[in-house]
Amino acid sequence: EIFAAIEAYFSEKRDFSGKKVLVTAGATRERIDDVRYLTNRSTGKMGYAVAAAAARRGAEVTLVSGITGLPAPKGVNRITAESAEDMFQEVTRRFDEMDLVVKAAAVADYTPASPMVGKMKKGGDFALELVRTKDILAELGARKERQVLVGFAAESAELERYARDKLRRKNLDLIAANDISRQDIGFASDENCLHLYFADGRSVQIEKCEKEQAAERLLDYAAELLEQKGRQS
Amino acid sequence: EIFAAIEAYFSEKRDFSGKKVLVTAGATRERIDDVRYLTNRSTGKMGYAVAAAAARRGAEVTLVSGITGLPAPKGVNRITAESAEDMFQEVTRRFDEMDLVVKAAAVADYTPASPMVGKMKKGGDFALELVRTKDILAELGARKERQVLVGFAAESAELERYARDKLRRKNLDLIAANDISRQDIGFASDENCLHLYFADGRSVQIEKCEKEQAAERLLDYAAELLEQKGRQS
Repeated sequence: EIFAAIEAYFSEKRDFSGKKVLVTAGATRERIDDVRYLTNRSTGKMGYAVAAAAARRGAEVTLVSGITGLPAPKGVNRITAESAEDMFQEVTRRFDEMDLVVKAAAVADYTPASPMVGKMKKGGDFALELVRTKDILAELGARKERQVLVGFAAESAELERYARDKLRRKNLDLIAANDISRQDIGFASDENCLHLYFADGRSVQIEKCEKEQAAERLLDYAAELLEQKGRQS
Repeated sequence: EIFAAIEAYFSEKRDFSGKKVLVTAGATRERIDDVRYLTNRSTGKMGYAVAAAAARRGAEVTLVSGITGLPAPKGVNRITAESAEDMFQEVTRRFDEMDLVVKAAAVADYTPASPMVGKMKKGGDFALELVRTKDILAELGARKERQVLVGFAAESAELERYARDKLRRKNLDLIAANDISRQDIGFASDENCLHLYFADGRSVQIEKCEKEQAAERLLDYAAELLEQKGRQS
């Protein structure tokens, strides 16, 4: 057992040693009033698994997380961002110093135009005015220099088309797409199945597995991309 | 220590022995599409504490809960209700057989008029049409016969006025109001401070304390009300 533990320790990859990695995770909350909010089904598990794995592999990891019930992974600097606007601020101000950014958070696309202070009193039916939030990935893609930028796409149909389109529009290096029409993987599940699409046209599928394993595989590809960029510069 | 444990065991109140108690807890989720939803800041802690305490005190407890991260309390039959409509169905079909109903859930007042299948594609700003959900408390109040009916009110201003108004309109026996403008209690906190208003005009304050203690105190008053109704019938 002791030998197995020692062996496991030394065989662990430390391929992110010296790298600064920023991971986003979880859902944002968009306030309607002091009680009610808009959110989505992301629980943060996938992003937390990526952050934990990157830390184990030697990276200096910052995890910008929506409010979740998850404990902060060991050795990770966690920053909580409640809303899409909070997340935009926390991510963009740290971007320049990063080597790798993995945007696993499910950031709200829309937020109430006029959130209320206090608790809205009930009345008749009404229409809640929603406005677009800032597009964090597009902002990072536009500012990207040496960074490797990895995004996620949750799609219920035409996975490849939408994912490749998002990869291109947002100037990503890699996008990990998952099919949310499947009940057995993805949101709130411990397992995931990821379709990876690369900027150079390649694609790879990570078969259904624990999110911890999917995170390790995703980082294997991110490490390759980091190495390629290192050689180019 | 052994004596203390035995003493604690026998001194525990079993004043809900033979009683059927239904507790609701947590927030509901109102689907916008397969990913996005409307919800609120209730975590379910207060309702779970009431359910756990009632079970310890001998009641047969059914807990109708929104989706929460909390484990089911020991000896409690938990039923998950995702939306306000689900909760309406699960609560109303069990109401007639109950002795006491404590409605601690924060049920959405509004739900999207036309939830989408799949994931809505982003476009420009838009207005989300919302319609009123069914009023569970008002329904129970109207159907009430021998049951003791306890509601909650989360208010950011004019606590007493709104709570007493809700008590009367919904034909409750007791309402527990908390002040959500305070950051140290209520939503997502382990502590609460409850203002109790009774149908007979009395009021009592449960000072700031752990939600477990607040739950025990609330049940003390509910037990009194059950006894009063028992004497009347």
